[in-house]
Amino acid sequence: MFSLYYAPNTCALASHIALEHVGAEYQAVRVDFSRSEQRAPDYLRINPKGRVPALVTGRGILTETPAILMFICQRFPEAGLAPLEDVFGLAQMNAFNSYLCSTVHVAHAHRMRGYRWVDDPIAIAAMQKKVPQSVGECFDLIEREYLRGPWVLGEHYSVSDMYLFTLAQWLEADGVDPERFPKVAKHRLRMSQDPIVSKVVASELSSS
Amino acid sequence: MFSLYYAPNTCALASHIALEHVGAEYQAVRVDFSRSEQRAPDYLRINPKGRVPALVTGRGILTETPAILMFICQRFPEAGLAPLEDVFGLAQMNAFNSYLCSTVHVAHAHRMRGYRWVDDPIAIAAMQKKVPQSVGECFDLIEREYLRGPWVLGEHYSVSDMYLFTLAQWLEADGVDPERFPKVAKHRLRMSQDPIVSKVVASELSSS
Repeated sequence: MFSLYYAPNTCALASHIALEHVGAEYQAVRVDFSRSEQRAPDYLRINPKGRVPALVTGRGILTETPAILMFICQRFPEAGLAPLEDVFGLAQMNAFNSYLCSTVHVAHAHRMRGYRWVDDPIAIAAMQKKVPQSVGECFDLIEREYLRGPWVLGEHYSVSDMYLFTLAQWLEADGVDPERFPKVAKHRLRMSQDPIVSKVVASELSSS
Repeated sequence: MFSLYYAPNTCALASHIALEHVGAEYQAVRVDFSRSEQRAPDYLRINPKGRVPALVTGRGILTETPAILMFICQRFPEAGLAPLEDVFGLAQMNAFNSYLCSTVHVAHAHRMRGYRWVDDPIAIAAMQKKVPQSVGECFDLIEREYLRGPWVLGEHYSVSDMYLFTLAQWLEADGVDPERFPKVAKHRLRMSQDPIVSKVVASELSSS
């Protein structure tokens, strides 16, 4: 039995979808960001970083989306959510996930979490102003170079699809027109029609 | 035969050390940032992101430090640079590497690469001002929570040690006193005394 600590509209959605997809026994535990629960002592004992997701397992606690996704792939190999037998293919999947966490998510975070990197309110506003451009450039690159179609890795549906879907959900709020990226838009629509994905999305929204 | 595209004083050092450690056949190809070679058409064909590292393999090109490191671990399993047989232990290693790329490296990048997220020169200066604090907080967390000692994963020397060493090399330039983190400082000293590490560090500096 796993416990996934999540908040709606965060990158925890990717891990949530993956757990549901593989049929893991898990409970989803909501962390209320509006009450700053992610920085409360109880939660910091689970994840000292004060962020979501965190996955409590029988062996210990895992954080960081790419690591949690890879763990789920390896723990439930029968689900086939990663090319586990292909060292190079797996590295390509990890590279895509790493790009999402270190560049795409970070570009997005400058809209709402600018205080991580700057104190001056004017500088925070200047950061927010550039988010449409910086996030847009990331998705240009994904559209042109990395989303092979129909899935990120081509014919192989993987956790990278769940992760891309999660970040693409933020485009409108980031001020980026999703229609600029036809392949990403098609991918997102296809993902949203997956009953597992829509069940998880609905469950996160209904409990918020 | 691999080709590793790198620049001195970048995170490519971690992959460079790993290749040397496993005894891979490789050539290190310097990308001259002072001439903006990373944004030249020839290099963008190798890595459309315009960054280092990029690892050219017989199967294709890999980017992103955590993915390259994991690839080297799996491609050279006899080197024992990752707990490949322990799904949870491997996830912990990946979580650490993911934290370095998505949070620690990003905090550091606000000193020299602020233009990625903002245009206003005043805001860029405001970003630079907070780097000692934000990078310092990351290393506080590493010191307190994640560096088990003597190595990141405890007794198991892994690619996480190479990656931590690489980012710890930036502390002084980021305005953070390394003596604040005794475990990190001891780890860094131990790493710098490893003949493989010192050989790679020297080779990057001598060709620059």
